[in-house]
Amino acid sequence: MSYFDAASSAPLHPVARQALQASLDEGWADPARLYREGRRARLLLDAAREAAAEAIGCRPDELVFTTSGTRAVHTGIEGTLAGRHRVGRHLIVSAVEHSSVLHSAETHRTRGGTVSEVPVLRTGAVSPDTYAEALRPDTALACLQSANHEVGTEQPVAAVAEACRAAGVPLLVDAAQSLAWGRVEGGWSLLTGSAHKWGGPAGVGLLVVRKGVRYAPQGPADERESGRAPGFENIPGIVAAAASLRAVRAEAAVESARLRELTDRIRARVPELVPDVEVVGDPVHRLPHLLTFSCLYVDGETLLHELDREGFSVSSGSSCTSSTLTPSHVLKAMGVLSEGNVRVSLPLGTTAEDVDRFLDVLPRTVAAVREKLGAPAGAPAVTVVQDGSLVSLVVDTLGKRCPIPVIELAKVITDVPIGGTVRVLSDDEAARLDIPAWCEMRNQEYVGEEPTEGGTAYVVRRRAP
Amino acid sequence: MSYFDAASSAPLHPVARQALQASLDEGWADPARLYREGRRARLLLDAAREAAAEAIGCRPDELVFTTSGTRAVHTGIEGTLAGRHRVGRHLIVSAVEHSSVLHSAETHRTRGGTVSEVPVLRTGAVSPDTYAEALRPDTALACLQSANHEVGTEQPVAAVAEACRAAGVPLLVDAAQSLAWGRVEGGWSLLTGSAHKWGGPAGVGLLVVRKGVRYAPQGPADERESGRAPGFENIPGIVAAAASLRAVRAEAAVESARLRELTDRIRARVPELVPDVEVVGDPVHRLPHLLTFSCLYVDGETLLHELDREGFSVSSGSSCTSSTLTPSHVLKAMGVLSEGNVRVSLPLGTTAEDVDRFLDVLPRTVAAVREKLGAPAGAPAVTVVQDGSLVSLVVDTLGKRCPIPVIELAKVITDVPIGGTVRVLSDDEAARLDIPAWCEMRNQEYVGEEPTEGGTAYVVRRRAP
Repeated sequence: MSYFDAASSAPLHPVARQALQASLDEGWADPARLYREGRRARLLLDAAREAAAEAIGCRPDELVFTTSGTRAVHTGIEGTLAGRHRVGRHLIVSAVEHSSVLHSAETHRTRGGTVSEVPVLRTGAVSPDTYAEALRPDTALACLQSANHEVGTEQPVAAVAEACRAAGVPLLVDAAQSLAWGRVEGGWSLLTGSAHKWGGPAGVGLLVVRKGVRYAPQGPADERESGRAPGFENIPGIVAAAASLRAVRAEAAVESARLRELTDRIRARVPELVPDVEVVGDPVHRLPHLLTFSCLYVDGETLLHELDREGFSVSSGSSCTSSTLTPSHVLKAMGVLSEGNVRVSLPLGTTAEDVDRFLDVLPRTVAAVREKLGAPAGAPAVTVVQDGSLVSLVVDTLGKRCPIPVIELAKVITDVPIGGTVRVLSDDEAARLDIPAWCEMRNQEYVGEEPTEGGTAYVVRRRAP
Repeated sequence: MSYFDAASSAPLHPVARQALQASLDEGWADPARLYREGRRARLLLDAAREAAAEAIGCRPDELVFTTSGTRAVHTGIEGTLAGRHRVGRHLIVSAVEHSSVLHSAETHRTRGGTVSEVPVLRTGAVSPDTYAEALRPDTALACLQSANHEVGTEQPVAAVAEACRAAGVPLLVDAAQSLAWGRVEGGWSLLTGSAHKWGGPAGVGLLVVRKGVRYAPQGPADERESGRAPGFENIPGIVAAAASLRAVRAEAAVESARLRELTDRIRARVPELVPDVEVVGDPVHRLPHLLTFSCLYVDGETLLHELDREGFSVSSGSSCTSSTLTPSHVLKAMGVLSEGNVRVSLPLGTTAEDVDRFLDVLPRTVAAVREKLGAPAGAPAVTVVQDGSLVSLVVDTLGKRCPIPVIELAKVITDVPIGGTVRVLSDDEAARLDIPAWCEMRNQEYVGEEPTEGGTAYVVRRRAP
């Protein structure tokens, strides 16, 4: 069995387990009490805060423990927007933030605030200049992840922080994906993290608010964690989180180099072994353990299922694997293929043998899925339209889901003469992303989309080979 | 060492520890994922939900796990107020709720809502009739704890729930203190709990929302826990919480009878062993493991400190033990003495020997504290005022903290003739509660209070013995 989804949740680090068990005996009492059990709990909590602060690079009194990374993000954004409401109600996020950031932005919008979403390059990174252009006199807060959770691309945090500092705007960095590997450099103002991403236990996040940031906790008052994280402290969890952060940092230099080699190997070999694959994300400026690729003509859900049967646990940003049947907002913002999408994120200690076995299994798994999908029960509903001197084919895939529209398009493209067009009718949200992506991969011209009865017509013009 | 503060946090139950350790290996993955590690995590989570729901007496899909009891209360109140905002913005709470409820009410007030605080009897219980009178056509939500966390008094939940049901108002029951002992009976609509109060781990609470209650989650969207508790689930903690709830329930009948005997013994013996003590809370309708008493002429902080030195960990609602230097809102609402206040809450398994040792240690500890305080360095600043035919003494204790004002009053009361008055000048918030309480205990007439320069004058008339 190979678990390749560390970016969702990492298995508990042995040090975390050890620290958790050791602190169950001393960490259960209320650290606000003055009797001995309370004092012992307080000592554990203080020591954990110091260790975490040292790993993050902040003062202990700037760091509070929350109950999750999501909660840290929600709280950090809400508190800063409230603390700086006199400056204005403008919030900046990148288009590829974690859903906790985007949902916070959505809440801010419904409460009357304004939000700018900074687009990303095809690598998944924001351009610092584009980000800087979004800064306004009424900007209360800017948010940028340290690295993307779906494609691994590192963001230019230091440069964006510099621009924010020049504009007097605090920058919140969601560092959930990168804290295992090192501190976030640059002059950020707030930082959030999630312990179970670095091998700590679930139920622990952290929120750092630099001294000097105007911050106003929202919601009912609570004295714990400087008034920034209500509820009784989960001290054994917090101790385990801090201990495992130190432990993974001690291994980070060696392990990141080792995992980078393995992910480089996958990035290089997959396009050689599997036809019609797009490896996405920045090839260099990326997390060491994470890579993502998409396979044309493949149903992501089936692929995940088949890989699971072969003993590989991976995740996907394909529309068919989401509850909303829309492709990942990250892939969408990057403008890359979303069908047959696979994210591989290696936990610490992954062996080269595991990776080689994956490279062995993947090609035949993709081939099998393609074979199953490549011969749909009925022939596609194709209509030939004489459009002046040019032939135009209409392929009706209404009611069919990803990857069928792209498969049908690929089947008929050579049926039109060079310069002729294929109109793919589809009501599948993924087609909007995947048909242009297919055109880019296959060197065909994407003309554009038009509304049509019951869906959208995506128009592709055949190019000379 | 005897830990007598289970109402703050109970030591981890052995079953909780076992369940926690067992589920660390299977409960770390994301239960929303479809691969094997995710499916295993989901199975654990589902089983825990079913076990907890069975213990509470609700449907599994009515119960979500939160990150603390406090968070469950905040969320439950906010979500119901939002879901029922068309009915009105009136919220009812009792005066002796946990701070998480009262702080939620305060937040509601600052957002423009109205709040009624139902007073309590001297036992700490609300009267169902008084509670029912607070219900209005615009009442969105009513809150009542199952039992009080400071004095142990059980609330008439079933009767209040009946009145709420008749008025069409949902009742939220904060059951944090009572869930170890059994289900909350009656037709409540929402219920909250906290695992570390029943021997489960910190970091787990629960919120039950009965089908049919209009409920609108607030804050940024999140798919986990039916959209009612954002953030990655702490499955090992949740499994341990559910397992320990079942375990303590299995022992509840025997253990509650046993602990009730021990707490009955303390309630009976303390007034015999220690002069000038008031045992507070309902003597019969109360939690089995919890009792509270207050000692005249004693400084609560010093008493706690001395008991800690003797190996007893207890808590106190005295003003000197709170960060705000005000007495517990519960004791205040009950109108009982707050000085020298001690709450004893026995964890499961407390032995009779521990209790006997406490009864041995307490009298001399109280006596020592009283001796230290009873002879203040200087004589009190007493002024004799000829008030017509009656003598009135003025005792200036401005700047002195609890229990000094009461000590000085007690010293001089026999210096005035029967019918004469003592005016105690004080700027200590506890005096407002403790001087009337002293009068009641000592059969003196409390005349009332008047504002005076730099504080308040509390007027006491000496009665015939």
